[in-house]
Amino acid sequence: MKTYLECYPCFLKQALSAARRAGGTEEQQLSVIRRTMEILKKLDAGAIPPEIARHVHHAVREEISCPDPYREAKQQSTEQALVLLPELRRLIEESSDPMDTAIRLAIAGNIMDLGVMEDFGNLQNTIDRVLKQQFAIDHTAELRELLETADHLLYLGDNTGETVFDRALIERISIPVIYAVKGSPVLNDATELDAIEAGLDTITTILSNGSDVPGTLLNLCSEEFKDAFEKAPVIIAKGQGNYESLSDAGRKVFCMLQIKCPVIGIDIGAPKGSIVCYRSGNKSK
Amino acid sequence: MKTYLECYPCFLKQALSAARRAGGTEEQQLSVIRRTMEILKKLDAGAIPPEIARHVHHAVREEISCPDPYREAKQQSTEQALVLLPELRRLIEESSDPMDTAIRLAIAGNIMDLGVMEDFGNLQNTIDRVLKQQFAIDHTAELRELLETADHLLYLGDNTGETVFDRALIERISIPVIYAVKGSPVLNDATELDAIEAGLDTITTILSNGSDVPGTLLNLCSEEFKDAFEKAPVIIAKGQGNYESLSDAGRKVFCMLQIKCPVIGIDIGAPKGSIVCYRSGNKSK
Repeated sequence: MKTYLECYPCFLKQALSAARRAGGTEEQQLSVIRRTMEILKKLDAGAIPPEIARHVHHAVREEISCPDPYREAKQQSTEQALVLLPELRRLIEESSDPMDTAIRLAIAGNIMDLGVMEDFGNLQNTIDRVLKQQFAIDHTAELRELLETADHLLYLGDNTGETVFDRALIERISIPVIYAVKGSPVLNDATELDAIEAGLDTITTILSNGSDVPGTLLNLCSEEFKDAFEKAPVIIAKGQGNYESLSDAGRKVFCMLQIKCPVIGIDIGAPKGSIVCYRSGNKSK
Repeated sequence: MKTYLECYPCFLKQALSAARRAGGTEEQQLSVIRRTMEILKKLDAGAIPPEIARHVHHAVREEISCPDPYREAKQQSTEQALVLLPELRRLIEESSDPMDTAIRLAIAGNIMDLGVMEDFGNLQNTIDRVLKQQFAIDHTAELRELLETADHLLYLGDNTGETVFDRALIERISIPVIYAVKGSPVLNDATELDAIEAGLDTITTILSNGSDVPGTLLNLCSEEFKDAFEKAPVIIAKGQGNYESLSDAGRKVFCMLQIKCPVIGIDIGAPKGSIVCYRSGNKSK
């Protein structure tokens, strides 16, 4: 997805939020804002949002000497979601279509995004909404069909805490799953440590993508990850950052997300607040 | 009021919105964003928001060669409010405290602010809310007392359309009123033309402040206006821009506004969504 002009103010907002989470002084926060404006001024034509976000969050970590500004928030998110795990499992087990419910819950978990909002509100309300809500784009039938025949699944994680919702879905998937995480901290995206805290090491092979992009930019990922991406017969890509990176990555990629940003909504063709399971490279426009 | 770090992303957002209203191409919109970042980079320590907004909107008008990007929106706002004028008058006349109702309605009109939002929503809902809502800061008793003894009032207008709500209040004020407007277009702030279209020339003396600041920065105003400001025994200053400019201007100034911005809310000490009649220089913090 290209960078829209609406993304510019949003990057400044995100930079300020991250600088505060990192415990930056007022002066450091201002430096981060100035550095972000420099990054935005020097943008290559065609730079996509996760690429820019990577530079912005790098500037925050460097300016404030804080390797993982979201560490505490991430731990809280994981704990909060783990409390819900028995309930998520119960909802799936008691559903007339457990796989549909599991997919919906994995999408519900995508609300735990600290790049868009300071606070993701009441999780139970989001779960209730997403369980009933109609998909704005629904390629779940094609995804489910592929999951029947594929020999394994590559699952690209997104936010920490959401990882636990992913775990509830992965428990319903009968083929082996590789769960990809970020190579080092950026925003509240899950790293290997965060995924382990969510218990994903017990049911998947966790794979670092080797990069600190809040999304998946293949040219910045490790050879090992690129290889896994290429060989995967089917890929679930969670969240906005992965959609921004992989919206045209080909028909084995299924982007599962909540539309929390109006600009992504325009790009994908679904209103803000909607839920989407979008087969990549399938845009009608 | 000082410029908070939260104001930075907000200026970019406002610049983009204004560039679009001015009919700018995608390329011109990007130029406006870049120029805004330059303005923000070169900020003097102590620059206050209306001063920065002035430069931003100047850049928009220059980049896109559009002297009044908000002209059409302003005309629509005036027409929309004029339709409501008979109802505003009826509400005031039938009230048990007509002056209280008239003040509240003038504050309700402050919602017609296109600097904060793209669209100010349903006016009737705002009127209903503000008529019932408790003041977060209420210095109306002191204002009303001064209006009893003063020989005239200087009334600093804010948004176009809001002008009509001001007119309904001014009709209840028995002393002569000077209604101050912006010297040239900026945002949807009322100029002389806009005030005349709201019928304010029939009940007030309209006075240009000689500046294009979305607020009132005395050092940038005309001598005539500064003289009127100095001589006025009591001043009503409408809206956020005037609060940002005049929050410490002295006890004859009463800022009447809705808090539409969280940062102004923090500065004045009233939550977003609240209504305020604040006697300047009266901050407890």
